[in-house]
Amino acid sequence: MRSMPEPKAADLDLIAVLHALADPVRLELVRRMAADGEVSCSPEYLDVPRSTLSNHWRVLREAGVTWTRAEGKARYMTLRREDLEARFPGVLGTILASATTAVVGAAPADR
Amino acid sequence: MRSMPEPKAADLDLIAVLHALADPVRLELVRRMAADGEVSCSPEYLDVPRSTLSNHWRVLREAGVTWTRAEGKARYMTLRREDLEARFPGVLGTILASATTAVVGAAPADR
Repeated sequence: MRSMPEPKAADLDLIAVLHALADPVRLELVRRMAADGEVSCSPEYLDVPRSTLSNHWRVLREAGVTWTRAEGKARYMTLRREDLEARFPGVLGTILASATTAVVGAAPADR
Repeated sequence: MRSMPEPKAADLDLIAVLHALADPVRLELVRRMAADGEVSCSPEYLDVPRSTLSNHWRVLREAGVTWTRAEGKARYMTLRREDLEARFPGVLGTILASATTAVVGAAPADR
């Protein structure tokens, strides 16, 4: 299994977290984890190529938004809600509250 | 004077706003506007090339984070705080509250 670095709670960076959330697919993954708890790495409700999805999960993990658990070849992700809340109070919650309708008309993140 | 499109309040997009804030220079400009009100396009406290800064202001304006006022060749920017709050309640405020210490160790936005 490859190394999967996850920043410590104290090292969470606001810019990196905002960047991680500033993408329609990643924000949707975050919404799903917020709603469902643990999520598999290739959820069937997302029509996104596996490699693209894998990259999105990496961005989320490296920003400290998710914990990753390996089980054989599969990966299961959960939201680091408590760490994010402790470091950036209210940020994730307010974004999630606004995300319901926002994701549909989402724009590309890197332009 | 060139055209400077600014999205209507109803057209503000969460992803675009998050992307606009997910950069250390832009987040610092937003912090300054939040603290000082109107800000000139080339504030002396930022050691950033004029063209780079101009691009950052464009991203902020196009995302609907700022209003831009022209006075001769100079531009003055203010934060669209009420529009952002109406559309994404609490998002800007919680980010600003977390931004004080976060910007110093900021990471590049597009990676």
